[in-house]
Amino acid sequence: MKRLKVGIIGAGRIGRLHAENLVRRLPGAELVAIADVVEEAARICARELGIPRAYGDPASILKDPEIEAVLICSSTDTHADLIEQAAEAGKHIFCEKPIALDLDSIDRALAAVERAGVVLQVGFNRRFDPSFSAAREAVAAGRIGRPHILKITSRDPAPPPIEYIKVSGGIFLDMTIHDFDMARFLMGEEVVEVYAAGTVLVDERIGEVGDIDTAIVTLRFESGALGVIDNSRRAVYGYDQRVEVFGDRGMVRVENPRPHQALVSNADGDHGPPLLHFFVERYTDSYVRELSAFVEAIQKGKEPPVTGRDGKIPVVMGYAAKRSLAEGRPVRLSEIDPSLA
Amino acid sequence: MKRLKVGIIGAGRIGRLHAENLVRRLPGAELVAIADVVEEAARICARELGIPRAYGDPASILKDPEIEAVLICSSTDTHADLIEQAAEAGKHIFCEKPIALDLDSIDRALAAVERAGVVLQVGFNRRFDPSFSAAREAVAAGRIGRPHILKITSRDPAPPPIEYIKVSGGIFLDMTIHDFDMARFLMGEEVVEVYAAGTVLVDERIGEVGDIDTAIVTLRFESGALGVIDNSRRAVYGYDQRVEVFGDRGMVRVENPRPHQALVSNADGDHGPPLLHFFVERYTDSYVRELSAFVEAIQKGKEPPVTGRDGKIPVVMGYAAKRSLAEGRPVRLSEIDPSLA
Amino acid sequence: MKRLKVGIIGAGRIGRLHAENLVRRLPGAELVAIADVVEEAARICARELGIPRAYGDPASILKDPEIEAVLICSSTDTHADLIEQAAEAGKHIFCEKPIALDLDSIDRALAAVERAGVVLQVGFNRRFDPSFSAAREAVAAGRIGRPHILKITSRDPAPPPIEYIKVSGGIFLDMTIHDFDMARFLMGEEVVEVYAAGTVLVDERIGEVGDIDTAIVTLRFESGALGVIDNSRRAVYGYDQRVEVFGDRGMVRVENPRPHQALVSNADGDHGPPLLHFFVERYTDSYVRELSAFVEAIQKGKEPPVTGRDGKIPVVMGYAAKRSLAEGRPVRLSEIDPSLA
Amino acid sequence: MKRLKVGIIGAGRIGRLHAENLVRRLPGAELVAIADVVEEAARICARELGIPRAYGDPASILKDPEIEAVLICSSTDTHADLIEQAAEAGKHIFCEKPIALDLDSIDRALAAVERAGVVLQVGFNRRFDPSFSAAREAVAAGRIGRPHILKITSRDPAPPPIEYIKVSGGIFLDMTIHDFDMARFLMGEEVVEVYAAGTVLVDERIGEVGDIDTAIVTLRFESGALGVIDNSRRAVYGYDQRVEVFGDRGMVRVENPRPHQALVSNADGDHGPPLLHFFVERYTDSYVRELSAFVEAIQKGKEPPVTGRDGKIPVVMGYAAKRSLAEGRPVRLSEIDPSLA
Repeated sequence: MKRLKVGIIGAGRIGRLHAENLVRRLPGAELVAIADVVEEAARICARELGIPRAYGDPASILKDPEIEAVLICSSTDTHADLIEQAAEAGKHIFCEKPIALDLDSIDRALAAVERAGVVLQVGFNRRFDPSFSAAREAVAAGRIGRPHILKITSRDPAPPPIEYIKVSGGIFLDMTIHDFDMARFLMGEEVVEVYAAGTVLVDERIGEVGDIDTAIVTLRFESGALGVIDNSRRAVYGYDQRVEVFGDRGMVRVENPRPHQALVSNADGDHGPPLLHFFVERYTDSYVRELSAFVEAIQKGKEPPVTGRDGKIPVVMGYAAKRSLAEGRPVRLSEIDPSLA
Repeated sequence: MKRLKVGIIGAGRIGRLHAENLVRRLPGAELVAIADVVEEAARICARELGIPRAYGDPASILKDPEIEAVLICSSTDTHADLIEQAAEAGKHIFCEKPIALDLDSIDRALAAVERAGVVLQVGFNRRFDPSFSAAREAVAAGRIGRPHILKITSRDPAPPPIEYIKVSGGIFLDMTIHDFDMARFLMGEEVVEVYAAGTVLVDERIGEVGDIDTAIVTLRFESGALGVIDNSRRAVYGYDQRVEVFGDRGMVRVENPRPHQALVSNADGDHGPPLLHFFVERYTDSYVRELSAFVEAIQKGKEPPVTGRDGKIPVVMGYAAKRSLAEGRPVRLSEIDPSLA
Repeated sequence: MKRLKVGIIGAGRIGRLHAENLVRRLPGAELVAIADVVEEAARICARELGIPRAYGDPASILKDPEIEAVLICSSTDTHADLIEQAAEAGKHIFCEKPIALDLDSIDRALAAVERAGVVLQVGFNRRFDPSFSAAREAVAAGRIGRPHILKITSRDPAPPPIEYIKVSGGIFLDMTIHDFDMARFLMGEEVVEVYAAGTVLVDERIGEVGDIDTAIVTLRFESGALGVIDNSRRAVYGYDQRVEVFGDRGMVRVENPRPHQALVSNADGDHGPPLLHFFVERYTDSYVRELSAFVEAIQKGKEPPVTGRDGKIPVVMGYAAKRSLAEGRPVRLSEIDPSLA
Repeated sequence: MKRLKVGIIGAGRIGRLHAENLVRRLPGAELVAIADVVEEAARICARELGIPRAYGDPASILKDPEIEAVLICSSTDTHADLIEQAAEAGKHIFCEKPIALDLDSIDRALAAVERAGVVLQVGFNRRFDPSFSAAREAVAAGRIGRPHILKITSRDPAPPPIEYIKVSGGIFLDMTIHDFDMARFLMGEEVVEVYAAGTVLVDERIGEVGDIDTAIVTLRFESGALGVIDNSRRAVYGYDQRVEVFGDRGMVRVENPRPHQALVSNADGDHGPPLLHFFVERYTDSYVRELSAFVEAIQKGKEPPVTGRDGKIPVVMGYAAKRSLAEGRPVRLSEIDPSLA
């Protein structure tokens, strides 16, 4: 099969990570250009990875006639507009999460994608983690029967800088959004109601800018099943990412992988290593697999595994959680977006 | 040290379990009498275990001058009155949980105990489980720093008969009550607010009698820490009892013990045995250790490790959870018992 | 069923352990007498456990007409003679391992048992450990196919006193003998050849009295399968007892149980407790289950699960290992006992 | 630092694996040419990976003046000659194991390397596995004290074709050779004596060509410590690669990694996935890390982490094991190579 010609918008951490994967680990695609508003960043990346063209503005990518698909890896506030423009330019689109922090922008972007008939895949990479996808397969195959309880533990090793937190949209839209997506993915059904409890225990400055750093979010699914997510911005033992789905015929759990399997036993007991540090280490394979799925969806004309709607609903859930926290009551998703009633 | 003379009221399952432990595994105590309203049950138990005296009514135990301490193992509705009577008779008291399903009765019973100056220990046996007590020790010793998030998973292998459920007070007072105690025990602090989500997924008949069988309960502690309990009346893989306390310097987790350590690996993967069936198998040691602690508290004049107040608060929490479920909002414990404000 | 009347010869550590189990945990048997050459030891044990009669010599047990079965728990050098006498007295016999350190004595004892037609069970308690018996069941049920490789790790927490080692018969007859039995038990077939490598690494004094403290013993089974045992007299992390059987359709492994299931994770990694200290803690249940099987064999007229021959062969293996170590070559069991050719 | 110019000799499975790693994952090196006696194989590989030059004979690589280092990935019988020629051409050398199946050829090759003063690293990749290197670090750091017992389990998922086995040199030189290297690596000391037990249980045809498929090899180290390796040509549950070093202050163990961390629990128990299939999956990272270490050794003028001597000794051990098996006795390495006395 002919290799898919790809361009990347944004040469920051995640853009570069995708660029490396495209160049080194995705034989089905060819990365032909990268753009960044800081043109020098695009140039450095292009030189180091042997990417043919580097641009100082995203528009050049969208105008490049050779490019069939774009990866939008720029800052969140640019995502929705770039999706609209890319769709109008007839490019297939992979966009990092979230599509936008406001629902109107998301709806406009999705409408543009629909009009253009291009593929849009949103970057919820965790679905492609080998363990989480194995868990989803176990649920989908009926190995645990009808799901009753979902549990997700998601704790970062350390909070981001306060300046980032200020513009992040808050923990539910910045961090829990991944868990909201995981909840829908693992269960294969929609959440109808959210109750969020939250507090500031990790760093007072997070509270001072109006956010929280520790949360427990209860979910109610349309089938009546329940779910719970617990979040912390700081786990000293490393990036803690576990899930569990409990059903009427069994349970599937995903524990954290370890950096290595060596275990020391001495008079004090058994001692193993701390967890992998953060998402770059933990989710290495998932980034390759999500782009591989994107390429395959385009080449085989299949629905992408993470759709525009999949990109929108977790944002709605994030707003429901915010309102729940503010008002101290469970909030239905239809209160945020009446179209979900 | 002289052996403590003990009498048991109630020769049902739990009474008999305590009787066996007293006879076989507690050298510091001597079981001298057992009573049951079904006198034949008391006689059979006495004969099989070599207990000197068997009675057909609890009053005979309370009047028996040799007896220094009584174990109240009769039905829940008799607990509070028997505590009052035993206290008036100057007996030390071990009472199975719950003290009562109404708070007035509990308060009267506790007042009687205080007047009499006897020891009262309530039967929250799980505190004495070697794993859970090791977890508590880790928290108390500061090994995980300041606690931020508590998690308890508590799932029974199968629901009790519907007839039992009808009079049980509901899942929060019958089943979650153990987890409410565990939450206070592990954290070493009080819960101030409860939010309960619940549903009927295991057995429709449970819903028909006004109860639920699946629940997620969010807790807010006085320090600001959060907690979550998930309950199910039926886990097909066995009795699932796990806890986790996450803090700013680490985490302590308790996984389920296994009936044995043999693991088979074949072309399909690794295969281990199901969990221990239920509380009798899982908490074997805890029952011995709780009575041992009771005997020691009396003999050494120490405060018992589970006090009357420890017996009352989980009932308050159960009522708060019930109200939360009914009203769809978080409920403060002080709404149930203003003395806790 | 009528309770089996039992007498114990030997009120030392293991005799007392069996006495407690008989009194407290074996409803099918009744311990009516205990004897010890130190009569005071027998008296103390009898008083504490409520055993009706205490004697200062074993003969009194053998003459006691009420006694149907005896447990021989005296020092090793007395086992064979006591078996002969007990058999002649028509008593069923449970004898601690080893039957004797010389094969002639064993043969004489077994002949006496056969003449008398009584039950003889030898005290290889590890067979009754829940994990090891589950492993044996997996092998016997064909879950791992035809066995190819057996592995046993058996390490004590600390060496016994040098005075004990001097008279122990050496590590192979004192310690490895349990593993030799385990090898035959797990595989369900006989060993034909042994190669032993050994050394002194734990304590030089062990070498000074002519013994070793560290060994690796290779086994060849009659089916052609291979096995290996590794032994150490001192594992600082606790009593290390693992087995593994690898076959053409899978593998079954037994890992060490833990004293509890609490695990602490912090910035240094994961931390679990040391292993159970020694055999009393690790094999608690196995002692109850072996006596229960002994009682059942007598009451139901079944072959005991550990026969006299099972008591003899590991001693032959021990001598083969000793000769192998001395001569630096593999030794066939038939070189030690030509009847095994 | 300037990128090291590398050429590869041999475009078979392992040559291609190294080529991909050099191109995609080793920024410090530049793969400029690949040669294979089947020139088309070299061409295909070069085209797919963008390698500038492809040759039909190894000599072209050795004559290529731009090339600073060669990777010898051709068939075993060519290794020693190519090492000599490469050394004479002044190229640094990475050579797949084994250097040769006869010791004279090895000695000649090593002498040539020494004369030329080039770097030679032998391809014992397992040393670079993150788990095994963590185990080695634990031993080297004294975390387990003085080593007493080494254990290595090494089982392939399936035997190679009989045609391969015929020319492989036998299991000890083909398969166990990796374990012999691992033994020296983990212990940090030399083996002085080997005793091998072996048999044919997996496939009779392996026996018919004079080889075995199941082995247990006992090692004696110069310090007096003991070791044991168990091998099978077929483990149905996947590639089984475990090590353990037991010392006077503790133990370090490496268990097998899993393809993912999802675990299903149901009424039958717990179920995890089979092991990773074989070395390509299991040792992925080790291949990158070994080349990275090779490049670093050259660029920084350091001793390579696996020397020519490290390449030779396991071959000596293989011959000692063969002789031990044939003669049924322990064999000292000095019997094979008197220079090791």
